[in-house]
Amino acid sequence: MIWFTEYQTKNTGLTVRVKESRRFQSEFQEILLLDTYEYGKMLVLDGAVQTTERDEFIYHEMLAHPALLAHQNPKRVLVIGGGDGGTVREVLKHSTVEEVHLCEIDKMVIEVSKEYLPTISGKLNDGKVTVFVEDGNKFLDERKNYYDVILLDLSDPVGPAEALFKRNFYQKVKASLREDGIMAAQTESPFLQEEYFKTAVQEIKAVFKNSQTYLAFIPTYPAGMWSFTLASDNNDFSTLKDKNISNLNTKYLSDKILNSLFALPKFVSDIIEK
Amino acid sequence: MIWFTEYQTKNTGLTVRVKESRRFQSEFQEILLLDTYEYGKMLVLDGAVQTTERDEFIYHEMLAHPALLAHQNPKRVLVIGGGDGGTVREVLKHSTVEEVHLCEIDKMVIEVSKEYLPTISGKLNDGKVTVFVEDGNKFLDERKNYYDVILLDLSDPVGPAEALFKRNFYQKVKASLREDGIMAAQTESPFLQEEYFKTAVQEIKAVFKNSQTYLAFIPTYPAGMWSFTLASDNNDFSTLKDKNISNLNTKYLSDKILNSLFALPKFVSDIIEK
Repeated sequence: MIWFTEYQTKNTGLTVRVKESRRFQSEFQEILLLDTYEYGKMLVLDGAVQTTERDEFIYHEMLAHPALLAHQNPKRVLVIGGGDGGTVREVLKHSTVEEVHLCEIDKMVIEVSKEYLPTISGKLNDGKVTVFVEDGNKFLDERKNYYDVILLDLSDPVGPAEALFKRNFYQKVKASLREDGIMAAQTESPFLQEEYFKTAVQEIKAVFKNSQTYLAFIPTYPAGMWSFTLASDNNDFSTLKDKNISNLNTKYLSDKILNSLFALPKFVSDIIEK
Repeated sequence: MIWFTEYQTKNTGLTVRVKESRRFQSEFQEILLLDTYEYGKMLVLDGAVQTTERDEFIYHEMLAHPALLAHQNPKRVLVIGGGDGGTVREVLKHSTVEEVHLCEIDKMVIEVSKEYLPTISGKLNDGKVTVFVEDGNKFLDERKNYYDVILLDLSDPVGPAEALFKRNFYQKVKASLREDGIMAAQTESPFLQEEYFKTAVQEIKAVFKNSQTYLAFIPTYPAGMWSFTLASDNNDFSTLKDKNISNLNTKYLSDKILNSLFALPKFVSDIIEK
């Protein structure tokens, strides 16, 4: 039997049984495409699980929908990272959206996802979507005051995404948003990556007037406990709880989850506030 | 390096690096006491992680407090299973409680916990606590209409705890509760143990007039997503959200978590309702 283990820290990991594996080496990272017994196809970048057919709906719904629902009329959306296409798929469920830009640095992630993960990547060819194979940092420099929503769908802050968890980058995101724009970012695991989590949230807070962190259960991510952070200068997210989600066909996000999105366990709010 | 993997299903597992291990064989099961790098001391029964020093607070707070807070005046509390003592420790934080019975079938679990897990088991010697080394099924037959709260702190429904996930057992629990009594049970992982979860919740619903399921992030349990179910004939749990928890010194349970305790992801409510 073939087993793959992601060492989520030096001392603990997620182990999955593998039917078949394919390995690619891009300019930026090692890309594994595993066919697993428990989670279906699994995309792994530099040893870290990015998405699986079985639980990807949780991450993609929870990154995309709160930000889009919080915005009054989201038309232009940018996804940075997210080459698998799952976030773009969720963004397109919002009928107000006219234009989706995806900025992914690694072309091979997009190609592998298109070939092996069609249920995730299937909307990358949608007419509203333009894919840019570029560095997110440079991409933002050329597009000021343009987007309604920017979603940071990044891998861990080591490797290609490291520079995109820094204050300077969040400032660029803010400059590329319109006045009432909203950012949502994945901000790591509060349990097994406390420092990454704390730093990301603190840097976001330093740049935006309002921010709110929320969690979701993601079985294949470290500790199964994942965080996201919403940020905006002109939106305090207070209207979010009353939004109608019935047209989004979600499998994770429910009215009740949306209503209580910012309810954090005490130890998690303590990390952010201390 | 020594590694331990719990195969949470045939096809996926949690892997932890081990400093030192001790193995005991009781009349009922294999007991491993691992000293791990990531989670501190870890208690493992028949290969399944029961509790770890680092994340035990989540499980024990979330099993004990909702039921005790929902009851107007909990005086007599029974914990079935829970030989590590963590649930008893949380129960004793409620000042109304006068008498705590612990009914654990495996004496060796209690002994190992007392010796190696003092921060978890430390309250088992409290004057309000009586420990019974007995089969939960038989124990309940002798105590009808007695308890205000009964907490089912059981291992998975295979091995020693199998009989304690059945309708017949929930009926005995109900008969041992007073009229306004409340049961709380751990009801497995909705993600990796969907059948166990569904069956437990359905059997509880078949026995009690009111029941409510809630989740907590438990990193060392399957999928990191764990469920609990409250049940009662004469309490609908609607007052729970306004209870004051400031005196409980919790690390997971917060006012907001309590307030939105029953907010479930859509796929989880779908499992229960279908």
